[in-house]
Amino acid sequence: MKQQWFKRPLHQLLRALNSDETSLPEVVASFYERIAKRDGQIGAWQYLIDQDDYLAEYESRREFYDASPLKGLPFAVKDVIDTADIPTTMGSVIHQNRIPDMDASCVTAMKAAGGILMGKTVTTEFAYFQAGKTNNPHDPERTPGGSSSGSAAAVADYMVPIAFGTQTAASVIRPASYCGCVGYVGSKNEFSLRNIQPLAQSLDSLGIISNDVLDTILVRNILLHKSLDPMPQANGMPYVFGVFSGQVLGPMQDPMLETLAGCQQALVGQGLKSVSFPLQDTVVELTALHGQIMAYEVARNLVYEQQFDTLGEHMQTLVASGLDLPYNDYIAALQKADSLKQGLMQWFETSGADFILAPSASGVAPYKTEGTGAPFMSRAWQLAGLPVVSLPLGYYQKMPMGLQLIGKPHQDDGLLLQARHLQQLFLSEQAAAPV
Amino acid sequence: MKQQWFKRPLHQLLRALNSDETSLPEVVASFYERIAKRDGQIGAWQYLIDQDDYLAEYESRREFYDASPLKGLPFAVKDVIDTADIPTTMGSVIHQNRIPDMDASCVTAMKAAGGILMGKTVTTEFAYFQAGKTNNPHDPERTPGGSSSGSAAAVADYMVPIAFGTQTAASVIRPASYCGCVGYVGSKNEFSLRNIQPLAQSLDSLGIISNDVLDTILVRNILLHKSLDPMPQANGMPYVFGVFSGQVLGPMQDPMLETLAGCQQALVGQGLKSVSFPLQDTVVELTALHGQIMAYEVARNLVYEQQFDTLGEHMQTLVASGLDLPYNDYIAALQKADSLKQGLMQWFETSGADFILAPSASGVAPYKTEGTGAPFMSRAWQLAGLPVVSLPLGYYQKMPMGLQLIGKPHQDDGLLLQARHLQQLFLSEQAAAPV
Repeated sequence: MKQQWFKRPLHQLLRALNSDETSLPEVVASFYERIAKRDGQIGAWQYLIDQDDYLAEYESRREFYDASPLKGLPFAVKDVIDTADIPTTMGSVIHQNRIPDMDASCVTAMKAAGGILMGKTVTTEFAYFQAGKTNNPHDPERTPGGSSSGSAAAVADYMVPIAFGTQTAASVIRPASYCGCVGYVGSKNEFSLRNIQPLAQSLDSLGIISNDVLDTILVRNILLHKSLDPMPQANGMPYVFGVFSGQVLGPMQDPMLETLAGCQQALVGQGLKSVSFPLQDTVVELTALHGQIMAYEVARNLVYEQQFDTLGEHMQTLVASGLDLPYNDYIAALQKADSLKQGLMQWFETSGADFILAPSASGVAPYKTEGTGAPFMSRAWQLAGLPVVSLPLGYYQKMPMGLQLIGKPHQDDGLLLQARHLQQLFLSEQAAAPV
Repeated sequence: MKQQWFKRPLHQLLRALNSDETSLPEVVASFYERIAKRDGQIGAWQYLIDQDDYLAEYESRREFYDASPLKGLPFAVKDVIDTADIPTTMGSVIHQNRIPDMDASCVTAMKAAGGILMGKTVTTEFAYFQAGKTNNPHDPERTPGGSSSGSAAAVADYMVPIAFGTQTAASVIRPASYCGCVGYVGSKNEFSLRNIQPLAQSLDSLGIISNDVLDTILVRNILLHKSLDPMPQANGMPYVFGVFSGQVLGPMQDPMLETLAGCQQALVGQGLKSVSFPLQDTVVELTALHGQIMAYEVARNLVYEQQFDTLGEHMQTLVASGLDLPYNDYIAALQKADSLKQGLMQWFETSGADFILAPSASGVAPYKTEGTGAPFMSRAWQLAGLPVVSLPLGYYQKMPMGLQLIGKPHQDDGLLLQARHLQQLFLSEQAAAPV
């Protein structure tokens, strides 16, 4: 039987290439076959490089690619991340013919490490709520979540092993949860955002979507010019964690709460220490402030697009509420958020917690008629600038559900090792693949 | 004698247009005559719109412009700020043919308010130290300062009434001081930076260069969608201020220290209250940390340019030191800066100070053979994200010198009113114009 290379995570593909178990063209063909078979139903791609062009690029600089860390393997980027010579539309008709003159720095870094850009993945309009064409790989009637819809769907469906997304509210963690892959959002200011189209500067973060935490670590290290040891060892056990159920923010589905409780119990059984997380009001307040700050900054950023009458309805509403918010209220919101964040930091300090464990979303992916799902499980952490990793730790009616680990600012390396530990405890390889 | 419209600040031109004392084409012709006469010697412009094209744009939408807040008056932007259809080179040969597909949001906001983009002003290479072609309007043998060299020189020499700059270290305040105009740098996160090419995201700020604080307030209000009352009244007297001489950071010229002492004395004579500023060590530490953070983030942002061997020597050195800095040292620097900033905030709180008064630079503009001047008088405030206004309050050997008012985060409105008050106390109109 033919090897299903497309199902392998990035670090396994690298190992197979290093040991000449396969060749780059064979692996690439496997991904393109998968796309041909599946993308008609899923619609993850906004723009896909021709397979011939992909292989021509590899052949033209084969010596470079063979010696490079990524060996010519494919990656994809959300269509708000600029790519030279390839359209970057931001999911908007206003920019449907926009071809940037330069790659975003995360794209350049991946190319310099020997990655080949396979294409652009669908985003909601300006990374907000207006859904694109993408369907959930587990059920085409359901949303993949937004706004990094195409990135999560493409990775979850094994059409590409790694994709970049961006998160301003819940745009990486929610789709990762709905599609059943690993989502990572870096601490505020962790990565260069050059030539990524901004939505709200106080909130925007780069995210990495993969099927394995090790792949996430590998790509993070490429972005940070760190050494590429793909097999860090988890350390510092036993970890300490608080649990936040989300019920104070909005309605949570029972299966999600059961997944959370089950995970908590299993972790305690494994020797981890669960401590109480009393700052419910802080999370509620941060969640509300996030909405205000986002609206104000979006209105400030999208001045160009406000001249067109083709802005989607969701975005028009957001911009209008941002324009309505007085400057002094915006500044007061920033300052209040800062002091609430100090409270969160103090809790981490006094409790000794390594991370907060929480549902990544309120439940499984809703049907598309209901939109792209609610972002309330991410807003608070995003405003506080905390790093987050979502892992697919639950299933209900054959739909995946994620739990998120929320860490301390710039403790991303430690958080990813903790997530790697949980992955080893709970996830068997290729559990619950879509097909 | 013909009216010298080019010497009038923006708010006076608006008044003259409103009262039909002059016409837009007459004012524009006055600026272009000035440019024709002076720019051969000064070299402030990287790209200048043809006068015919300027007037054709005005005529084509005359009804819009006549009814608009800015009435078709000209503005200029530093060549790291993207402009659609006009090259944005960042002062680098790598980007000499780069034409962005979109205006930066500050440009869009000015155009929407009826400003007409007159052109792009010279920047040092990537807004760092490699000087462009611009000379100081007061002495062509001297530097205009960097990196917003062209913006400061063009405004100081009355070739355009208003120009945008950017500041990462001292790139607005230093050239404003050297050229003798009003420089304003917004608080961290005060304005949208969309489609302004970033140098270091933790530090980059938008700046406004003018010849009158009222003009600065007017343009700030356009960017913030605030009402455009051009004549706010100073209030809250008597102000309280601390004084920082800068001697703990580096060698200061005696005339600059005398200017500072004279201003302090005059302000006290006017009833303002001077309090001690004991945080000398804090400023020294922030200044050192700024250099580290800037190097790290520049190296992270300029990944594309690092592939070319045409990066200038200054930038190569900076990038190399940024790549050498371990990630953990960078994060530690960010965290240390944050705690030092808290100390500064506490001083403002307990002293009741409205602003810190300090020299904007170490002295007058150096000769061009010595580079673009030292940035050490700005690094600390820039890292702390504080708003700053520089006013031309001293002269030595016919060269201007600026003093800066450093305020509390997001108290920009109050700080500009305080600067307006000092301007009224000390500056007669058109004092010490270059020619």
